[in-house]
Amino acid sequence: MRPQDVIRRKRDGEHLSREEITFFIEGVTRGTIADYQISALLMAIYLNGMNDAEQGMLTEAMLNSGNILDFSHIAKPKADKHSTGGVGDKTSLLIAPMVAACGVCVPMISGRGLGHTGGTLDKLETIPGYRVDLSATEFEGVLQSVGYAMSGQTAELAPADKKMYALRDATSTVEAIPLIVASIISKKGAAGLDAMVIDVKVGSGAFMRQEARAETLAHALVRTGNALGIRTRALLTDMNQPLGRAVGNSLEVKECIQLLRGEGEGGAQPVLELSLELSAHMLVLAHVDKSLAAAHERLQKIVSSGEALECFRRNVEAQGGDPRVCDDPDGFLPLVTETFKVESPRSGFITKVDTAEVGHAIAAIGGGRVRIDDRIEPTVGFVAEVKIGDSVRSDESLGLVYCRDEAAAREAAERIQSAYEVGDQPLSEIPQLVKEVINE
Amino acid sequence: MRPQDVIRRKRDGEHLSREEITFFIEGVTRGTIADYQISALLMAIYLNGMNDAEQGMLTEAMLNSGNILDFSHIAKPKADKHSTGGVGDKTSLLIAPMVAACGVCVPMISGRGLGHTGGTLDKLETIPGYRVDLSATEFEGVLQSVGYAMSGQTAELAPADKKMYALRDATSTVEAIPLIVASIISKKGAAGLDAMVIDVKVGSGAFMRQEARAETLAHALVRTGNALGIRTRALLTDMNQPLGRAVGNSLEVKECIQLLRGEGEGGAQPVLELSLELSAHMLVLAHVDKSLAAAHERLQKIVSSGEALECFRRNVEAQGGDPRVCDDPDGFLPLVTETFKVESPRSGFITKVDTAEVGHAIAAIGGGRVRIDDRIEPTVGFVAEVKIGDSVRSDESLGLVYCRDEAAAREAAERIQSAYEVGDQPLSEIPQLVKEVINE
Repeated sequence: MRPQDVIRRKRDGEHLSREEITFFIEGVTRGTIADYQISALLMAIYLNGMNDAEQGMLTEAMLNSGNILDFSHIAKPKADKHSTGGVGDKTSLLIAPMVAACGVCVPMISGRGLGHTGGTLDKLETIPGYRVDLSATEFEGVLQSVGYAMSGQTAELAPADKKMYALRDATSTVEAIPLIVASIISKKGAAGLDAMVIDVKVGSGAFMRQEARAETLAHALVRTGNALGIRTRALLTDMNQPLGRAVGNSLEVKECIQLLRGEGEGGAQPVLELSLELSAHMLVLAHVDKSLAAAHERLQKIVSSGEALECFRRNVEAQGGDPRVCDDPDGFLPLVTETFKVESPRSGFITKVDTAEVGHAIAAIGGGRVRIDDRIEPTVGFVAEVKIGDSVRSDESLGLVYCRDEAAAREAAERIQSAYEVGDQPLSEIPQLVKEVINE
Repeated sequence: MRPQDVIRRKRDGEHLSREEITFFIEGVTRGTIADYQISALLMAIYLNGMNDAEQGMLTEAMLNSGNILDFSHIAKPKADKHSTGGVGDKTSLLIAPMVAACGVCVPMISGRGLGHTGGTLDKLETIPGYRVDLSATEFEGVLQSVGYAMSGQTAELAPADKKMYALRDATSTVEAIPLIVASIISKKGAAGLDAMVIDVKVGSGAFMRQEARAETLAHALVRTGNALGIRTRALLTDMNQPLGRAVGNSLEVKECIQLLRGEGEGGAQPVLELSLELSAHMLVLAHVDKSLAAAHERLQKIVSSGEALECFRRNVEAQGGDPRVCDDPDGFLPLVTETFKVESPRSGFITKVDTAEVGHAIAAIGGGRVRIDDRIEPTVGFVAEVKIGDSVRSDESLGLVYCRDEAAAREAAERIQSAYEVGDQPLSEIPQLVKEVINE
């Protein structure tokens, strides 16, 4: 078999066999198939798609391309959550300790921010001393002692995905559903999960702006996850405005700690609300609770009793961070006091937010990455003071840009100002946080 | 502009602008665009196509990627012929001297054989001493003194095509019509032609087996050539059996010299017939003759007077070859006497030939290239003794395999035997050599 024969068959819209897919992914992993052959196949998959059988085989081959973590000696159900990415999307920081505190093992392999979206690893790293580059042994140690661990994808975990992901970014083949599904599920599958909840974001700050396409992706994720033996569910959730108030790394960590402490302001509540919802689905899929209602009741207690915060604190300590951040986020996180007000251009009602633009504005001044190897400035960010549906007066604040450099702050504020649409009439309908739960 | 933005637009089926195409091809030429980005665009072009405007701009950008030969000081019309490739297709060796002897300047940039097809350069190199690696100065010197010159594509001529062609072979994007057209016309255009005739082969030994697709290719070639200011015509010709009798490098040169000497056997006559037809179209397009009939009359005289052979002899001498090959091909070409008979498996009529298989059988034993860097064995070949429509008796010879290695010869003979279909009934219709002339 030759790589070009596999490419030709997909080019011609045929269905690839298990043998062909395995041959190709093994070649990607070993480096015997050239990058230009990989990218030709990626484009052929982008344009001609894959059926469910191919999708499953591709995911399995990528999953098997590296080490598979084996936590079978940990006598707990293993579950995780994955998000397709958004702006101000920080639920991982709440979900992991909440679900772990309920007795579920959460081996969370997370990513970095890129473009308008943030990344869990970048956020955690703003905690002084916190390490996200755990070895497999360290990861397992933290998992056993704390109940959850957070780390980046190592070179040994789904290396074929790592290789293909870098090529997809450079060849405009990122948005292909079969490739997105295989990338997500192969990494999660290699972490040895029993259950998985996927937060598929839809709206102006998501990779999928159209609901129909996000729905198609969600169904493909659920079918593929289940086919690989991971009990999988997807929630279609709103990303038409930043989630919560904070956008920017240390500001988002602060918001999470405040929520775990029961101190979160009104605008931050959707973060907790969505985290509880996703966590409840995880508990049900992990067979900890029989109903969402029971799971919600359990989670409420875990949060209000301080057990979730305690679990978070133990994780911070176990991963090398300073646990005092939990008692005094302002004192231990890298935050700045310099702020720049984003004024409302007129009086009216917030009708729409170009959420990706908000993310890009903050990334451009150091809060995120424009290129994969950009360094992050942890203190930079934006805290929204309004939500879609709110009424604002002219010159009233839409939110504050946090940044030491005034010129940069002004630039970001201008971009954010034009990202918010202020209309004359109040909206008849406010976007629902959870749009749909997808089980198959 | 970034390469991935151009890739994305073609991926989404949009029409690329001149600026985008030029940016990309310049990046290919300079090496600033990665191979994996080039191959992703090639696949997107393969699957989404190009309209006439894009096709013209792509061809022009590739043409301008390197040096453009300027023969404007040679006060003759410049014309060339190109073939899309076949088995036993040796017309270049006849057309160049015939047309040059009629006063046309023929700067012929030729290629090597690959897969089942032969290449003019490989054939010419079987003439002792003949050089096909002429420098630009040498090429022009031969062109001026003889009227025609034959050489390979230099690194300076359409380098973007060279780069893309190598990638197409490895990524199954060879057969895309916009890429075929741009590759052919960019090379021919860089040779500064006034007129060009393209022999588009169709049938079991051609790259295009289906007539409809060959026709589409022919129209695209003619439109693109004319748009670039080269008077272009395409002939759709039959490749459902080897052209003439000989397949294999020195055997094909021998057949050509015999035809120029007026000694060709009956089975070889289609080579002369097709060469005359293609040459006549060249003379008309080059404005040497007003009608095909007048051109044919002129060409017949040129051949029968020996002037075409004389021109061929002068070219051989000018390119370093031994001109005595023209008087005694058997004495000066590397030929072998060892032959292996391909027997007809039964009595009946030749109804069909898997011509590509004949080519592959000869390539496999050294007469052609399986891989681009394979060495050619010049003596190896096949000489057919039957044509489609002929009646054969059981055990009668279909032809002879020429090869010193008996085991290899036997293997090739078996493959060729099964490539010939012998039916009970004579065919009602023998394939026509020229199926269609395409002017627009």
